[in-house]
Amino acid sequence: MKLCTFPNGTPDGQLAVVSADGTRCAVADGIAPTLQVALERWADVEPALRQRAQDLDAGRCAAAMPFDPPKALAPLPRAWQWLDGSAFQSHGDLMATVFGTERHTYDERPLMYQGLSDRFLPATADVPLPSEQDGIDFEGEFGVITDAVPMGTSKAEAAAHIRLVVLINDWSLRRIAPVEMKTGFGWIQAKPACSVAPIAVTPDELGEAWQSGRVRMRLEVDWNGRRFGAAHGGAMAFGFSDLVAHAAYSRDLVPGTLIGSGTVSNPDYREVGSSCIAERRAIEMLDEGAARTPYMAFGDRVRMAARFDDGRDGPFGAIDQRVVRGGAA
Amino acid sequence: MKLCTFPNGTPDGQLAVVSADGTRCAVADGIAPTLQVALERWADVEPALRQRAQDLDAGRCAAAMPFDPPKALAPLPRAWQWLDGSAFQSHGDLMATVFGTERHTYDERPLMYQGLSDRFLPATADVPLPSEQDGIDFEGEFGVITDAVPMGTSKAEAAAHIRLVVLINDWSLRRIAPVEMKTGFGWIQAKPACSVAPIAVTPDELGEAWQSGRVRMRLEVDWNGRRFGAAHGGAMAFGFSDLVAHAAYSRDLVPGTLIGSGTVSNPDYREVGSSCIAERRAIEMLDEGAARTPYMAFGDRVRMAARFDDGRDGPFGAIDQRVVRGGAA
Repeated sequence: MKLCTFPNGTPDGQLAVVSADGTRCAVADGIAPTLQVALERWADVEPALRQRAQDLDAGRCAAAMPFDPPKALAPLPRAWQWLDGSAFQSHGDLMATVFGTERHTYDERPLMYQGLSDRFLPATADVPLPSEQDGIDFEGEFGVITDAVPMGTSKAEAAAHIRLVVLINDWSLRRIAPVEMKTGFGWIQAKPACSVAPIAVTPDELGEAWQSGRVRMRLEVDWNGRRFGAAHGGAMAFGFSDLVAHAAYSRDLVPGTLIGSGTVSNPDYREVGSSCIAERRAIEMLDEGAARTPYMAFGDRVRMAARFDDGRDGPFGAIDQRVVRGGAA
Repeated sequence: MKLCTFPNGTPDGQLAVVSADGTRCAVADGIAPTLQVALERWADVEPALRQRAQDLDAGRCAAAMPFDPPKALAPLPRAWQWLDGSAFQSHGDLMATVFGTERHTYDERPLMYQGLSDRFLPATADVPLPSEQDGIDFEGEFGVITDAVPMGTSKAEAAAHIRLVVLINDWSLRRIAPVEMKTGFGWIQAKPACSVAPIAVTPDELGEAWQSGRVRMRLEVDWNGRRFGAAHGGAMAFGFSDLVAHAAYSRDLVPGTLIGSGTVSNPDYREVGSSCIAERRAIEMLDEGAARTPYMAFGDRVRMAARFDDGRDGPFGAIDQRVVRGGAA
């Protein structure tokens, strides 16, 4: 099942169901007004949402309309909690190179920080940031959305709480990141609002590509129209179930918690490319002794979309947006 | 003006005004249903809230009822954003001692992390935590609640966005904290839900005790009925305006953003005591070569209340709660 959210003048927008082929949609009126509400009572509303999706696919839905992705908001325009992991070891190793920090061992304990969740930008909205001097970077990653997860939920139990899968651009300011990281407190200024691709999907929608709590698809990233990377999501050192259980150790997870994979990255990064600029700079440092690829300039665009291993387009739709000058800096 | 929130079956509860002497209250019906809504349109609703408070004080409010603090929720039972600073240098220095981490310099850049904000526990509710082995600790601190703060707001402009002041117990798990801190990602497992004293106050309610964006009051902390500390809030290395501007560098702050001072701490900690156990353990390490005060056990209580310099009780009411076994660990 594919879900999206349309603007309706409220902060959470209006929930809608998208057809399997991604061409049509129908609002979920009478079922759940918003995705947040749907996640709060998922067991009750999922059957009705799936019925509407079936009706839509069968041409039996009177309220069907064409699906126009740029009109959609982020599937969850805001969430009570956004916990972003960093589960790809090759990304962690390269970031340690570019920031001059210690390498993480990826043994038992996943990396995770809590980020800004009061707004997620639509996939095609301009992204306002204060200064080009901050090292503006994209980070392509997959994420999941949970229902209510009780404190102490095990890894085995966690899988059943993963209700939706999404594609995220986790905007990052790289010149601030290592300064904040050095404090041990994580990132505030270095992590502005994220963007999310328009369609959230139930894990079954991914078929064989959803395995071991991992999204086994390539994340194709284009910067200003040129392919920058196509790393594969299957390489996560921890699966999403592990990340959910880690997050729930000492807290109940609120329904609508987003948990991110961290930047999708593969050990053969010289072949597949990267999902963020900082990684490419690290590779240049390793190979050429110095980083030469600049970070983003105002007006630059980044596009992200997932692709199944058999070549089909992924189900999330595309993030395709421009970074612009914002704030007062 | 003093505000509180009562349970009414909804997650955000019902906003109420508390009398100046803290003995009576009246719900804010017809003005704003919740504190979150009030903060979203503060300029519009503040005059009506103040009028109701005046009516209450003058005995002209028909809906007045006795104020029973244990019946109140946290003033904001949940918030879209909780950003906790660490603005007391003596706290930072002692924590570096106890964790074996590098000292922060407290020059230009405040320390700040983003924490769990989807629930704030009532001041007298039991606090469920997974294990005594995690080093259960309290952290007494002051906090502010802002209205909407645009990205790029300056320190000078930030002061006007501070609408309310609160008293917070930022629960911490000390055996996990340094492990998470070492990653640079900040805390997830080490920072479960915080508790908040029942009354949020407008800064003018503090009179002379609100100066330079600092709460110039003592925070009295009792552990199992014995005085543990009475450090003074005036010692912040950064004022709350600085913290608000820091947070807003690359993000718009959503109305109802909570920003914390970090653990209240003074350089004469041997005289005034501490607002968390970890600090006392650091002092023991410095003075006696080893920490001997244990962290909390299930069933332990902690009480926190603020006191004006002239000896009057502070306006926030008390946090007084017990830690209990929770989760599945």
